[in-house]
Amino acid sequence: MTLHDEILAIGNNAVTAARRLALLNGRRRRNILLAMADAVDSQRNRIKQANESDLFSGKQAGLSAAMLDRLALTDARIDAMLKGLREVAGLKDCIGKTIRKWTRPNGLIIRKVRVPIGVIAIIYESRPNVTADAAGLCLKTANAVILRGGKEAINSNQAIVRAMSEGGASQGLPRDAIQLVATTDREAVRELVRLEGIVDLVMPRGGEQLIRAVVENAKVPVIKHYKGVCHIYVDESANLEMALNIIENAKCQRPGVCNAVEKVLVHEALAFSFIPLLADKLNAKGVELRGDEASRVFAGEKIKPAVEEDWSAEYLDLILAVKIVPSTQAAVEHINHYGSHHSDAIITESAGSKKMFLDQVDSAAVYANASTRFTDGGEFGLGAEVGISTDKLHARGPMGLEELTSYKYEVLGTGQVRA
Amino acid sequence: MTLHDEILAIGNNAVTAARRLALLNGRRRRNILLAMADAVDSQRNRIKQANESDLFSGKQAGLSAAMLDRLALTDARIDAMLKGLREVAGLKDCIGKTIRKWTRPNGLIIRKVRVPIGVIAIIYESRPNVTADAAGLCLKTANAVILRGGKEAINSNQAIVRAMSEGGASQGLPRDAIQLVATTDREAVRELVRLEGIVDLVMPRGGEQLIRAVVENAKVPVIKHYKGVCHIYVDESANLEMALNIIENAKCQRPGVCNAVEKVLVHEALAFSFIPLLADKLNAKGVELRGDEASRVFAGEKIKPAVEEDWSAEYLDLILAVKIVPSTQAAVEHINHYGSHHSDAIITESAGSKKMFLDQVDSAAVYANASTRFTDGGEFGLGAEVGISTDKLHARGPMGLEELTSYKYEVLGTGQVRA
Repeated sequence: MTLHDEILAIGNNAVTAARRLALLNGRRRRNILLAMADAVDSQRNRIKQANESDLFSGKQAGLSAAMLDRLALTDARIDAMLKGLREVAGLKDCIGKTIRKWTRPNGLIIRKVRVPIGVIAIIYESRPNVTADAAGLCLKTANAVILRGGKEAINSNQAIVRAMSEGGASQGLPRDAIQLVATTDREAVRELVRLEGIVDLVMPRGGEQLIRAVVENAKVPVIKHYKGVCHIYVDESANLEMALNIIENAKCQRPGVCNAVEKVLVHEALAFSFIPLLADKLNAKGVELRGDEASRVFAGEKIKPAVEEDWSAEYLDLILAVKIVPSTQAAVEHINHYGSHHSDAIITESAGSKKMFLDQVDSAAVYANASTRFTDGGEFGLGAEVGISTDKLHARGPMGLEELTSYKYEVLGTGQVRA
Repeated sequence: MTLHDEILAIGNNAVTAARRLALLNGRRRRNILLAMADAVDSQRNRIKQANESDLFSGKQAGLSAAMLDRLALTDARIDAMLKGLREVAGLKDCIGKTIRKWTRPNGLIIRKVRVPIGVIAIIYESRPNVTADAAGLCLKTANAVILRGGKEAINSNQAIVRAMSEGGASQGLPRDAIQLVATTDREAVRELVRLEGIVDLVMPRGGEQLIRAVVENAKVPVIKHYKGVCHIYVDESANLEMALNIIENAKCQRPGVCNAVEKVLVHEALAFSFIPLLADKLNAKGVELRGDEASRVFAGEKIKPAVEEDWSAEYLDLILAVKIVPSTQAAVEHINHYGSHHSDAIITESAGSKKMFLDQVDSAAVYANASTRFTDGGEFGLGAEVGISTDKLHARGPMGLEELTSYKYEVLGTGQVRA
């Protein structure tokens, strides 16, 4: 069997599974998810053994300590997987619900009803916990899922998928509803994302390089975000204490995530008073500041010189670039030009500046007077988060369960024909 | 300037125009659309002259009578363009509207607000009226539009775009909000659909070949339908008179459109009584029937033998394929396997068969006891139709104005930071 045939068979099996999944009611899907969690729990030792094997190979292959840490499945991480599956099981079911219903003058009743997307492929890197998270969210919404994790986690992922499949099957999970691409060859991803008409959606989760490779090859729809280059603009009218507090939070609370702030733009009218405060506060937290010439006038050595690349860089680290801007308009233009359309904030007491910023910044989430760190399905109250999209089609910003669904129109007649 | 640079410049100009368009309120956009219609009217002679030139070249190039007809801009067709622009101008504006608003326990107010998609590329064939229709719908929703019509209509399209741009400009339409790709080289389409991060959405409108070429090359999201292979299944419990009436309407009222019926599946229990009636009724209307062996037993020479290709063919003509099936389940499976996921109907008096069919047929529009010909934005009451999607992401079925929009989250705080 060629690789193409192997991946095609996985796709076709997923289509069959998706049709069967669509027949299960919400209660049945809930029970399946709970049984999946129980099976992961009862097969914990087998999963840990598989993970040991991955860790051993990883060490042999010279993976970094950070990568080995991401790969490791501790009891706490397995517990978090179980908890995640059980929480998703308990969320309100949205499949089959009427989104809108209306009657036409000719008596046709039209019902727009929420349905699963069908077959979703998730492509990710070394964290094996994604295997359980992604499968849980897809099955909650009655989608068949094709998982493609990193090759360094293959044994862990196989053990987790086996546990979930066995557990789920005991409650009626259709065969092939959860499939893992076993071939670790990169070419397998290329084949998978070209299954037009079979795979309905691909969601790559990981670094920018992985996502670009998926988009470059994909023939099926992809929802993604490449990176988070998030800005906070401190307006002329800002409450400076609030601004310092929000910037510190957005930079330091968890610097390695996509909604952490990477750039601060400061209105020139308050540069003199604000820049030294900012530099002192963040330097004390171990943050390296990189600024344009204007900002360095007010803080000297506390701010290193920034280069052009700094304005579009995603550091994911305790580094922050600072720039002085002459107006809210200039801040908006800078953000729309250099940003990643993810999450951007204004700190202001001016209703006019706030409105201009919220209206004109072309990002998934635009904030006034709050930390960008809130761009997250849980923080938004969406129940669960599937990912964050900086695309504008289908889903934008934090994606909850509804973003894993499509709809169809049911049209009920009594013999109507078109005139 | 290379072709790549030329198309890239068009894309970048559209991004700038989209930012400006997003600042215009609904009243302003309405006035722009009305002024566009007025200018098309006042430049009618110039448009007709350009069209004469296209028709002349088309005849020289040996275009078929049908293609020349599609290309021709009569006064009636220009009037229809004006009427279309004015009707779209009058539709309710949805941009900037709050889709949902809620407050989180920490006091953050989250508002999900409808925004334009940004830059939309429309790729179409020889009908120049699409130029006005597509521009109208895109501008109503504050999107910049890049148009790429067929090379045989290039002069007509340029004249229409010039009129719309000049008319719109008099009411504040931003420069480059409507652009036509002047290069008729096919390579231009390839460049256009690869402008990832610049073009937000591509909508190809035309034959399957055009659409496949777009999907094959695209790096940006595409919404489309390849074809309409629509089914009507006549259930065991069907009202036969209703079934005949609906099938005749769905086949004959306008055979050349994507929601016309192409296949009829008949439950075996009523084949004996129904097939002869169907054959007589449709033969009398000039419809060629092609059937499986079982159906031909009941109608002899009135039904020609069908071959395997018939089950997936889109005839767009007075041809209909007929097949006997043993059950609703078999009908569902046939439709999901051979169909195009566009529009499929059941004729039945049984609540159980109806539910099974509506639940399990995986199509954009599923009907009970009505003609498939109603899959249309106007017939659904959506106001205007942008196209019909058989995709499951973003938009499915008839697309109205809302399907040309995205959303963003506005988050209003009072200094909140993440714990």
